[in-house]
Amino acid sequence: MSKLRCQISVSVDGYVAGPNQSEQEPLGEGGERLHDWVIELESWRRAHGKEGGEVNASTQVMDETLENIGAAVMGRNMFGPIGGGPWDDEWKGWWGDNPPYHYPVFVITHHEREPLEMEGGTTFYFVTDGIEAALERAKEAAGNEDVGLWGGGDVINQYLAAGLLDELELHIAPVVLGGGSRLFEGVGPDVQLDRVRVIEAPGVTHVKYRVLH
Amino acid sequence: MSKLRCQISVSVDGYVAGPNQSEQEPLGEGGERLHDWVIELESWRRAHGKEGGEVNASTQVMDETLENIGAAVMGRNMFGPIGGGPWDDEWKGWWGDNPPYHYPVFVITHHEREPLEMEGGTTFYFVTDGIEAALERAKEAAGNEDVGLWGGGDVINQYLAAGLLDELELHIAPVVLGGGSRLFEGVGPDVQLDRVRVIEAPGVTHVKYRVLH
Repeated sequence: MSKLRCQISVSVDGYVAGPNQSEQEPLGEGGERLHDWVIELESWRRAHGKEGGEVNASTQVMDETLENIGAAVMGRNMFGPIGGGPWDDEWKGWWGDNPPYHYPVFVITHHEREPLEMEGGTTFYFVTDGIEAALERAKEAAGNEDVGLWGGGDVINQYLAAGLLDELELHIAPVVLGGGSRLFEGVGPDVQLDRVRVIEAPGVTHVKYRVLH
Repeated sequence: MSKLRCQISVSVDGYVAGPNQSEQEPLGEGGERLHDWVIELESWRRAHGKEGGEVNASTQVMDETLENIGAAVMGRNMFGPIGGGPWDDEWKGWWGDNPPYHYPVFVITHHEREPLEMEGGTTFYFVTDGIEAALERAKEAAGNEDVGLWGGGDVINQYLAAGLLDELELHIAPVVLGGGSRLFEGVGPDVQLDRVRVIEAPGVTHVKYRVLH
């Protein structure tokens, strides 16, 4: 059966973005340090149209993480700048004309909007009737493949608290952010985890959990 | 030079104790689950006068963690029940007549009290003039060995924020607590960490960091 799989970079103190997120600093103050490990990778650079980069223990993790994904769900704050406003009908996401997804992405928002077809196979659909509806549509679109949940923190926390997430992979960066968007905020002790795998890689520790239902 | 080394079990959501700590539940609601991995160990059981137990990847971690320690500092809430009150002159800690330390332990408190000599080489000293004074006295007592910082969360956060900690080893348990005593509360992004080592063991992920100064 199609699973909902989340992977996200997190600081040692549990934040997936730093304080004061804005259009200029979408990951908040210091938040870009969470991704130092990934932007060095050859595979990441290739997916983003860049040359060079490293192959290391994170390469296999990212390959695994991205394989067998047929659709994704995403929070509104991951699609566009925090604060909302008039960006809704102009904004096409952070990723340029050819986003690195290449599958349907369901954006959870309060603002209705027509689907936005990008180059390379990514289409953004805007879902206004909540996280369960978004997941249902994404699973339908994914067919036999899984659905990715790529952020932000608030939406991940909602799926976790609702018992809808099947897999959570944390990329723990050796960074203290001291504030911002905290993973597990509002998530209670009824969420049961089973650790699946640990991989030590340069500048990051990958820990994958299965969420028990 | 003598280092200040901390090791502590922490939940996936960053708590070192659950909510509502009390004399009956010193680790708060659900908090004892943080230590499921350690109480299974043969080495832990032996240190606490029990027989049997497992030898696994955590055994070496705990051996390393406890070696070359000549003294420790500890918060008042780790020594006695939260809430304070009249326990001060009667209470002898949670560990019975022969605590598993066997070296001088400096308890940071607001209440003056005579040193408390226990069996097996542990003496509790009560320090009322703050974390720096406690560390200074512990380093003096430790000589060429290191000083252990064994909790609780509030005192660890104070040492971290003050830039006095040299090493932090987290034993990440696959547990969500949803509230309680949060590690890194009040600790800012000026704390720089360098990851030293990762060990995957049954029911726990050990991640050791060096704190850069």
